[in-house]
Amino acid sequence: METLHVALGSRSYPIIIGQGFLGDRSLFEQHLRARDLLVVSNTVVAPLYLESLQASLEPRRVVATILPDGESHKTLANVARILDVLVANRFGRDCAVVALGGGVVGDMAGFAAATYQRGVAFAQVPTTLLAQVDSSVGGKTGVNHPGGKNLIGAFHQPVAVMADTRTLATLPSRELRAGLAEVIKYGLICDAGFFAWLEAHIDTLLAGDAAALGHVIRRSCEIKAEIVGRDEREHGERALLNLGHTFGHAVESATRYTEWLHGEAIGAGLVMAARMSVESGHLTSEEMDRVVDLVARTGLPTHVANVSPDIALGHMRIDKKVQAGRIRLVLLRGIGRAFVTAEYAEPALHRTLAKHLG
Amino acid sequence: METLHVALGSRSYPIIIGQGFLGDRSLFEQHLRARDLLVVSNTVVAPLYLESLQASLEPRRVVATILPDGESHKTLANVARILDVLVANRFGRDCAVVALGGGVVGDMAGFAAATYQRGVAFAQVPTTLLAQVDSSVGGKTGVNHPGGKNLIGAFHQPVAVMADTRTLATLPSRELRAGLAEVIKYGLICDAGFFAWLEAHIDTLLAGDAAALGHVIRRSCEIKAEIVGRDEREHGERALLNLGHTFGHAVESATRYTEWLHGEAIGAGLVMAARMSVESGHLTSEEMDRVVDLVARTGLPTHVANVSPDIALGHMRIDKKVQAGRIRLVLLRGIGRAFVTAEYAEPALHRTLAKHLG
Repeated sequence: METLHVALGSRSYPIIIGQGFLGDRSLFEQHLRARDLLVVSNTVVAPLYLESLQASLEPRRVVATILPDGESHKTLANVARILDVLVANRFGRDCAVVALGGGVVGDMAGFAAATYQRGVAFAQVPTTLLAQVDSSVGGKTGVNHPGGKNLIGAFHQPVAVMADTRTLATLPSRELRAGLAEVIKYGLICDAGFFAWLEAHIDTLLAGDAAALGHVIRRSCEIKAEIVGRDEREHGERALLNLGHTFGHAVESATRYTEWLHGEAIGAGLVMAARMSVESGHLTSEEMDRVVDLVARTGLPTHVANVSPDIALGHMRIDKKVQAGRIRLVLLRGIGRAFVTAEYAEPALHRTLAKHLG
Repeated sequence: METLHVALGSRSYPIIIGQGFLGDRSLFEQHLRARDLLVVSNTVVAPLYLESLQASLEPRRVVATILPDGESHKTLANVARILDVLVANRFGRDCAVVALGGGVVGDMAGFAAATYQRGVAFAQVPTTLLAQVDSSVGGKTGVNHPGGKNLIGAFHQPVAVMADTRTLATLPSRELRAGLAEVIKYGLICDAGFFAWLEAHIDTLLAGDAAALGHVIRRSCEIKAEIVGRDEREHGERALLNLGHTFGHAVESATRYTEWLHGEAIGAGLVMAARMSVESGHLTSEEMDRVVDLVARTGLPTHVANVSPDIALGHMRIDKKVQAGRIRLVLLRGIGRAFVTAEYAEPALHRTLAKHLG
């Protein structure tokens, strides 16, 4: 078991990474003090891990809410369902919400915790690779709007992130690959050595090797914890974590969150960010080819069919990174060297979208 | 024109109190920089003041949303309507939401601003006495749940509060009286001299005297700004501002937010807090009589019919002040000396409710 720290003053919290601790009652007592607990999970994860987690939380009062699985269910209506359960059980401001599942469950449970009684405690127990390396850390919570991804939400830091890597044993291969998209992202943003390590070990990772997965989870959480610690509310550096996301969110919105997993859309988004960096003269085409190759070897899309570039551009314009009507993009000056810019030529953007969409 | 300050570090903001500045474009340009603005108002206030405010905000892009009037409409569904308008107009993270109206409009517009794109700028232009002395200051935003008052919400400080006291000229007398309940509250919490001043000037205030109203708005905002500056998130002292509110909220919930204005319920709540303080041996009955007299002279209820004490108690148990299953009450040790306690006898609470409800 290993513990990392997200340093945010009074809102600091640990990220606990270990194997097979879901049944460890003393660990949960140590990190989660509330007497009344609502566990939020989904129809896929609950049958696998809810009983074990509930046993670790008892004899305290534990209530569970099971939501439907998938990004298309990450809606304000489902958050309202969680809030209804909290009210119906008369949970007070001293309760805690526990998210058991992937990014969708974590985002919704976190948003419910952020808004119930203007904020109650919240813990993340991520069970997918994507949630363990990315979405469970950093306090971004929220839901999608038909008009755009994650448009409604709040910053609300968890009191603890508890990533049991044994849950990855039951993770479908498609979900594993989707999680690796965010891992590749960290290498591209700020760690060329990590990116090269991923190039060398991608087959081992795809085979589900526990040691290799443990390494990428630790390194990803380290990078994210550092950046979030320096810029909690995304006034600057944290925007780098959105590499590939403006493109990826447009793919998700254009396909109504039903066709692609978030991580799959991010895979294509990383490729488009690299292409746009080449089109803008910041990146060599050899470097772009390394990005395209790794994304492809990971089994993620490098081209998305049936999404019109114009429709994708419309979705990009409502993205949260828009400032003064201008889309701000995260681009690459090299592998491991991301930067944010609003300085680029529109035709380069059109060429990029036309190349990888449609 | 007078300016008070709420000191909250990077979230500090001015409270501007003046007469007839709604048409002052330079003032709004100074305090509200966003290029895209959504004004949220209601069907009663919009016909009176929206045109004037919109003219002051132009030539920037200004969109308006008009909601139904009244506490029973302070729902998540109406906040979702505001969010839909923001998305439909493709407003970016650099937009601002402006609340033009009373507490209901301010709470909903503020919650929409808190959650749109995880938080956008927000300004309060309160047009009722209650909003000018209380709800527009301090960053509490949110909506009611059928199970309880203000159970869903967020802390989100405005960038400015701009209280034009000329709007009180069109305020119905019932609304004026409701606002005075919160003013009386401030005297009871921490300023016996102010309470005595209110006893001496209540008739002048009820007659709508502009100078007297200006005085109570300034003094109320001063007290609230000081307390919020010391305890933004209600970890301690700020809870004093809930004097009368646990009782009042129970009245509102039990009558489904349709029968009593918030301030009217608070009037009865102040009386119940005073009674409970006497029942618990903290306050003399002479002091309680002063509270009952002032509330009654203000034209606010001191007894609420058709609300069963048991049902009210049920609503109190889901109040946000509940900790470890115990209702925490704000009581009085004297006029101007409020305190928070969970130490009281249940029968005293039952006697208090039985005396003023049913």
